[in-house]
Order: sequence, then C-alpha cells, then structure tokens
Amino acid sequence: MQHPYLMFLGDVPDQLGAKTAQGIKDWRPDWCIGQLRLEGCQADLKLEDISLQEAINRGAKTMVIGIVNSGGFLPEHWVSQIVEAMELGMDIASGLHIRLADVPEIKEAAAKFGRELFDVRHPKGSLPTGKGTPRTGKRLLAVGTDCSVGKMYTTLAVEKEMKARGMNADFRATGQTGIFIAGDGISIDAVVADFISGAVEVLSPENTEDHWDIIEGQGSLFHPSFAGVSIGLIHGAQADALILCHEPTRQHMRGLPHQPLPDIQECMDMNLAAAKLTNPNAKFVGISINTSGLSVEEGDKMLANFEAKYGLPTVDAFRTGVAKIVDNLD
Amino acid sequence: MQHPYLMFLGDVPDQLGAKTAQGIKDWRPDWCIGQLRLEGCQADLKLEDISLQEAINRGAKTMVIGIVNSGGFLPEHWVSQIVEAMELGMDIASGLHIRLADVPEIKEAAAKFGRELFDVRHPKGSLPTGKGTPRTGKRLLAVGTDCSVGKMYTTLAVEKEMKARGMNADFRATGQTGIFIAGDGISIDAVVADFISGAVEVLSPENTEDHWDIIEGQGSLFHPSFAGVSIGLIHGAQADALILCHEPTRQHMRGLPHQPLPDIQECMDMNLAAAKLTNPNAKFVGISINTSGLSVEEGDKMLANFEAKYGLPTVDAFRTGVAKIVDNLD
Repeated sequence: MQHPYLMFLGDVPDQLGAKTAQGIKDWRPDWCIGQLRLEGCQADLKLEDISLQEAINRGAKTMVIGIVNSGGFLPEHWVSQIVEAMELGMDIASGLHIRLADVPEIKEAAAKFGRELFDVRHPKGSLPTGKGTPRTGKRLLAVGTDCSVGKMYTTLAVEKEMKARGMNADFRATGQTGIFIAGDGISIDAVVADFISGAVEVLSPENTEDHWDIIEGQGSLFHPSFAGVSIGLIHGAQADALILCHEPTRQHMRGLPHQPLPDIQECMDMNLAAAKLTNPNAKFVGISINTSGLSVEEGDKMLANFEAKYGLPTVDAFRTGVAKIVDNLD
Repeated sequence: MQHPYLMFLGDVPDQLGAKTAQGIKDWRPDWCIGQLRLEGCQADLKLEDISLQEAINRGAKTMVIGIVNSGGFLPEHWVSQIVEAMELGMDIASGLHIRLADVPEIKEAAAKFGRELFDVRHPKGSLPTGKGTPRTGKRLLAVGTDCSVGKMYTTLAVEKEMKARGMNADFRATGQTGIFIAGDGISIDAVVADFISGAVEVLSPENTEDHWDIIEGQGSLFHPSFAGVSIGLIHGAQADALILCHEPTRQHMRGLPHQPLPDIQECMDMNLAAAKLTNPNAKFVGISINTSGLSVEEGDKMLANFEAKYGLPTVDAFRTGVAKIVDNLD
C-alpha cells in the first residue's frame, strides 16, 4: 500500500464510523494529505476537504476507505467516486468486509486503469503452517486481559519510542487499522485456523540481532470467542518480550455479559506459559493500562499499585508514554 | 450426506492413500456397500469391487472420494466417473483439498442432474463467533499431547460404548474422516480464525440433559502450528468431560523435529485451565494411550502406571476398549 493517502469518509453518520480513519490520521498524520467527504457525512478527521483531482495534485497514491458501516457493505453511491479515483491514478484500500473486487465496476476499473485493490480484512495468497523454529531478531508482543484494551496503541507507542531512540524497530500489524498505519500486515482473525501461527511467522520473519518486531496483539486467551487467534499469535510471534494490556473499568469480557474478566496474575501466567512453548526465554517486560476511564489520581494510584504488585513497569501508553517499558528491555 | 456410500478409490498408489476411506469402512461398515477402483489402484478396503450401476442397484446414495493424493488435486481421468455417478443418481462427497465445484464439468453435472456436492474439508455457509453462553446437555472432548494420537478413534469408541449401553450420545466430527463417518460435521481447521469456537458451538448445540455430544478433538495446545484450533475447540465445546490422548513412542511434536513433547501433567493442567473458561465444572475423566508401538506387556504396564500416577482410568481404546472411562462419567 503506497502513501500518501486520501482519506475517503463517504457519508458515515457519526465519528465512530470513521474510527479506523481516525487511527490512521493519529499515527500517520504525514501520510494523510486530505479527506473526501460526501454530502451528509458526519465524521471529520480535521483534515482539509479536497477533491479527487486535488488529491492527485498533492501526490496521493492510495484512496483509503477506512470507515465502518453497518453490514460492512459498500454503498452504491460510493462506487463512482472509487472508479474515478482509480481513473485519476490512485490505488484503493478498503477496511470493509466486502471485497472491492466483488463489485464488478470496481474490478473492471482496476483492470482497465492498472490500479491495485487492497482489502485489508482479507489476507492475500497462501500461508504456511507455523513451524516454531527459532529465528533471529527480537520480538515484542502485546497480549490482553480482553479485546480492545489498547494493544495496537501500546505497540505503536513502543515503536515510536524505539525509533525516537534510534533503535531498529518495526510495528507489525495484525488488524485492519494497524495495516493501514503500517502500510502492510495480515488481518490475523481472517486467516484460516490452521495457519494462524504460520501467518505471524511470515509477518515477523528472521531479522538482524538488533532488530525489534513490535507485534500488534489480538483478542485474549481468556476471550471465549477469539482465544484461538490469540494463542496462534503468541506461538507464531516467538516473543522475547510481552506487554500485558488492560482496561480497568471493563465489567465483563467484551461482547459477553456473562463472561468475567480474568485475574491479572492468572492471565500473565497463561500467556507466559503459551509464549514459552516457542521461546523459552519469553518474559513480561511491562503492563499497559488504559486509565482514561479513571481520574488522573486514581489512574496514577493504579499504575503504582500494579508496579508494586507485579514488579513490572506499568504505564498508560497515552498519558505517561511507554519509555519505562522500553527502558526495561534487554 | 446420505448413506450408503460407494467408496471411490481411484488409482491411489498405496494403502495409505485410502486412509480416510479405511477409517470410514472400519467405523461404518454397514454404510459401505462396495468399492470402485480404477486400473492401477494399490489400495483395497476388502469390500466388493462393484460398478457405478451396481452401486445404484444396491441403493448407494453418495460416492465418497475418501482418498489422499499428493497435492490434493483431482486427477482428470477421475472426472468422467464422477460425472457418471451423478448421472446415475449419486451425490458426491470429497475429502480432497480442491473443491468439487471448482471443476467445471463436475459443477455442471451436479446442476444438470440435481445432485449435491460435499467438500468435507471446506465448511459451508457462515458461522457465528463463539459466545461461551452455558448450554444444556453434556459434552465430552478429546484433547491430545500432539496431533494424530488417537482423538478420533477414542471419541468414536466412546460413542460406540455409550450406544451399546443405551445411552443418548452423538459423535461430533471436526475433521474430514470423522465427517464421513458421522455423515456431517465441520472441518474445524479450515474455519476462519475468528469463528473456531463459534463453529464448535454450532456443531454441538444445546441438547437434553441426558444427551452426550462426543466431540472429536484436533491438534494440541502444545503444537506450535495448530494450538489455535485446539483452544477454540476447547472453548467452544464447553466440555464437562475431557479425555487426554497420547502416543508414547512419539519422539517430538508431529512434523516438528525441534519441538519436544509436553509433560503429561502440564498438558492436562493447561487443557483443564482452558476448558474451565467456558465450563467451570470441566474435568478429566480418563486417559487414552495408543500402545500399538509397545509390546502388550509394556503397554499394560504403561496403562497401570498412568492410572496410578494420574488417578484416572487409562485405556488403549483399540486394545482394551473405553468402558472404564465411560464407567467414570457422572
């Protein structure tokens, strides 16, 4: 996926519909040269509203459909804009459930104008099964007490901190927003079950001894819907360093009102046991808590309590940054 | 999938190529009314060799391509036989990697003659994500120290023993051979990662209080390639009863010479911890060891040792049967 991006917001009815686009803008502001909104659009990335032609004039390479709509389909009245974007010279990247090439006009236009279509939810090509063979380079993986507890945010913050220190690091995306931010990656939850760990091995291949792959986690070993994704990620990552991500105001596992949250220590123990299967030296290097639902005082107290109780640097990646955790790496 | 089956062996070069077909014949001999072999076939199920027309005369409903060939493709010279089978009145069921409907002549013939095509490796339709909501009925799941350690054999033996006792039980197939034997099921390793546990919930839905679903396991939590499949199966099954399956002559995890086998106790502990996430009452009810690689004396000694060490009825499902384990169910 080539940047810069033109951010296409269509006519989504609220800001939440542009959550993916917002994540891209937050983490890669330099890649986002403007937004294109249709009449009635209620989302705003605070980017300049520009036309398709103006996007081309400014060097846009890809038009990104980083929005979520109910059903994941592609509204018919977006198609003409997408076709025109390709005619003018842009590739198209989509986070919708529907495949771009499943819309005949889009498929034809891509062929006619020689443009690429990226469906970030849909892994391309064939993947191998995981092997678990030791490989060079260092890897860090975020794991969680639940889904949506800050794994992407934390790993992006670690990459940013490492790069600021001149370290050799790459964020490795495993979900759709992360893939737009990285420019590539594999949507791990969309891989066929037999190939989960194999996909992660492909995503974070052997590297130089000083290189860190900072791998975005998914799900939780304690989430009855998605633990298969999580354990495959853990085995495939062969992580040297694990960060536990947590959201302290959560009342139950996301989407499952009957399912209690795991105990923190139990959660770390099981993740570590799984990680040691493919890297006996795996260890936790920090805890990342999203304290946005607490007051600053409560949040600070919680971070201090976790540090004392678990003996690990504990941060709020957004509020305190992740420097303490990066300090703790070998 | 309707039985009786005509077993199509094509011209596979050895008995191993007909392993799936052999499993069907072993467990459902009454469903197999004959075999059809092409010139050069080196496999033999010890069934009568019959023609397509003779199969129809004997009431065959489905022609089963229960063979494995290198690459999983469908040899061109099999196509005419498959088309003729449909013309005469049979559905077609295949365990090959290639989808039957991806062969144009086969797809056309199915439409023309109104026959069904079953690709047991490829789950049909859309699946929900797992919910982990408690459901009625009782469930037993086989888990393993490794892949290919007797999980299918053990669960089929449990179903057979239960039915012989007049218990209300159904084998639930999660792999291709099992699906042919059950007549339906879901090939769990071919499901998209997000839907592993959801697929198992669909496969073993709520049932009457006296009913047992006997769920075929897959992979191992300790296999770096396939643990995602295994944990999703465990969470989706909500098993009341677990059986650990083991093959004592294995030197390393199947296919991975560098990967050691797990410790038995550690393996049971991790499987039980995973199972308790969706069923706090889950427990191990027995151990099933494939002792075929040992002498009878060594095998008996091992079964006795395991019983003493782990406090669980320990059987060789083939040699001693599984009655002891069924005796141990609540």
